[in-house]
Amino acid sequence: MTVSGKIILRREITASPVAADFELAEEVLADPAAGELLVRVIYLSLDPYVGSALRGRHMTPQPLPGDLIPGKGIGQIVASADPDFAVGDYVTGEMGWRDHVLVPAGDMRKVDKEMAPLSAQIGVAGMPGLTAWASMHHLADVRPGDQVLVSSAAGPVGGTVGQIARILGATRVVGIAGSEEKCALVTNSYGFDACINYRDADWKEQLASAMPEGISVYHDNVGGELLDTALQNLSDYGRVVLCGLASQYQADERPAGPNPAIFIVKRAKVMGLVVYDFLEEQPNVTRKIGQWIADGKLAYVEDRVEGLDQAPVLFEKLMAGQNIGKAIVAVGPETI
Amino acid sequence: MTVSGKIILRREITASPVAADFELAEEVLADPAAGELLVRVIYLSLDPYVGSALRGRHMTPQPLPGDLIPGKGIGQIVASADPDFAVGDYVTGEMGWRDHVLVPAGDMRKVDKEMAPLSAQIGVAGMPGLTAWASMHHLADVRPGDQVLVSSAAGPVGGTVGQIARILGATRVVGIAGSEEKCALVTNSYGFDACINYRDADWKEQLASAMPEGISVYHDNVGGELLDTALQNLSDYGRVVLCGLASQYQADERPAGPNPAIFIVKRAKVMGLVVYDFLEEQPNVTRKIGQWIADGKLAYVEDRVEGLDQAPVLFEKLMAGQNIGKAIVAVGPETI
Repeated sequence: MTVSGKIILRREITASPVAADFELAEEVLADPAAGELLVRVIYLSLDPYVGSALRGRHMTPQPLPGDLIPGKGIGQIVASADPDFAVGDYVTGEMGWRDHVLVPAGDMRKVDKEMAPLSAQIGVAGMPGLTAWASMHHLADVRPGDQVLVSSAAGPVGGTVGQIARILGATRVVGIAGSEEKCALVTNSYGFDACINYRDADWKEQLASAMPEGISVYHDNVGGELLDTALQNLSDYGRVVLCGLASQYQADERPAGPNPAIFIVKRAKVMGLVVYDFLEEQPNVTRKIGQWIADGKLAYVEDRVEGLDQAPVLFEKLMAGQNIGKAIVAVGPETI
Repeated sequence: MTVSGKIILRREITASPVAADFELAEEVLADPAAGELLVRVIYLSLDPYVGSALRGRHMTPQPLPGDLIPGKGIGQIVASADPDFAVGDYVTGEMGWRDHVLVPAGDMRKVDKEMAPLSAQIGVAGMPGLTAWASMHHLADVRPGDQVLVSSAAGPVGGTVGQIARILGATRVVGIAGSEEKCALVTNSYGFDACINYRDADWKEQLASAMPEGISVYHDNVGGELLDTALQNLSDYGRVVLCGLASQYQADERPAGPNPAIFIVKRAKVMGLVVYDFLEEQPNVTRKIGQWIADGKLAYVEDRVEGLDQAPVLFEKLMAGQNIGKAIVAVGPETI
């Protein structure tokens, strides 16, 4: 029997989620029954899609007041009732915001601690990295000569998208982000050729100047005006990967999108990306990205808090677009 | 020296073009100088894009009052000053609404009268057929198993799109058109499995019932509500070819399009099609379609008027969506 802390939703979410929308609670976990595992959580990933899910606008279920907040984690098995998993194994999967979790073994996937830094395995080497790989390799098929634009370029997906584009041979990689500080990260740490702060009054002119040959590939995490503007600057036959809609995460309605005429005139190829379609590839992509990290070809930055109780504070910051780097909650030590 | 009739724009177009917006005029054509041809026009194609061009909303130049109306034609050389073209050769190209045309030989392409019926060579075996082929073969890559939806299905592009989809092995082909009469053409003559009249109050329910397995390929000639509705019924990984925006041809503004969320959720692949990109393939596609016509695999219907002076009347009908079949003006006899 284990007592685990967990973060639950305190009240219905009607605006951008804040820390006070959540509260710490406890639950008692039984010992694992056959086929179950008891896992101590080491790292929790905080992700923007949870903000959508909390308002019933994501393909995952909507948490109601009193419910556990969903979240991907990485942890270590402390008790196993499944022959394929041993105490001490590291695993990842949906854990929710808690410090221990009793789960069916089939819901967990073993991770190799040596493949990439453990926290990166739920960050740039995890699903954000898989998203970036799927976008640049499978959908956009980036090649030398490509002029790649990435929105939310300071985020764990966007930052990795641009770096993978560069690794795949893109000729020019430009980011869009929401502050000077984020842009500094994008160019200095992630090595983009340029970064446009979309809060600047003349950002559209800056963008056109930064990509004088046009945009051959646009990875969109935002929608709205950023998508419109990128489309205006798209080269003929440009590829557009639609991967997120940050501009809508807190909107009450889904606003209309660009007039289809722009897709026709530009002969655009527009592709919707859902990372869940690529989960089979996760181990290979984690290995690939781990190697790039080890070789110094791919950089990542974390915005990390210590302790499960700090998750709501970091989540509020993430939802307000104020965090820099991948939002990670360090719930427990890597080894005990 | 030849006196040619021509149709010019009488006044600025501010609403749906009507016959009275045009007038018949004359021009005197010199004898061909070196490298020029004098061509008598046999058939003129009337096309919806001209309606857009007249209002400055097409990628081709906007005709101003007094200007010749643009249009693709097919004709026969009556005088040649180019060694590659002989009197009696049949040629096609941009001719404008007139009965004779003096053109640089390089602007004309010879056509083989035996490849397909001559009028079909500026109809289903011409650019509309090339558009349909590019859409179904090159962009959507239709295969057995595909569930194909086509808007403007009674038109020369849409009707051919559905028939080529069937030839390529599509499992189900459904059309959308704007009247019972058009729908009868689509199912009876073009052999679609079903046709939805979008003027029916319950057309959206009819569409969902007609495609119970979802839409794997949508060829869109219309935009607006038809595009929105097709996207709602799209299968995951559906392909959408954007080829026209009939819903906007007469609009004062370009309305917004579907929210990008639908493209993401459906993992859609959306492609813009401009037929000019495929012009090199025209002779091969004309031959292919001519053979399908000869073999009874591909049907076409013409809405034909006799005489250049009738072009404005037929064009008004086309712009009002009241014509059935490819709009063709028979300007002169096929042989003299």
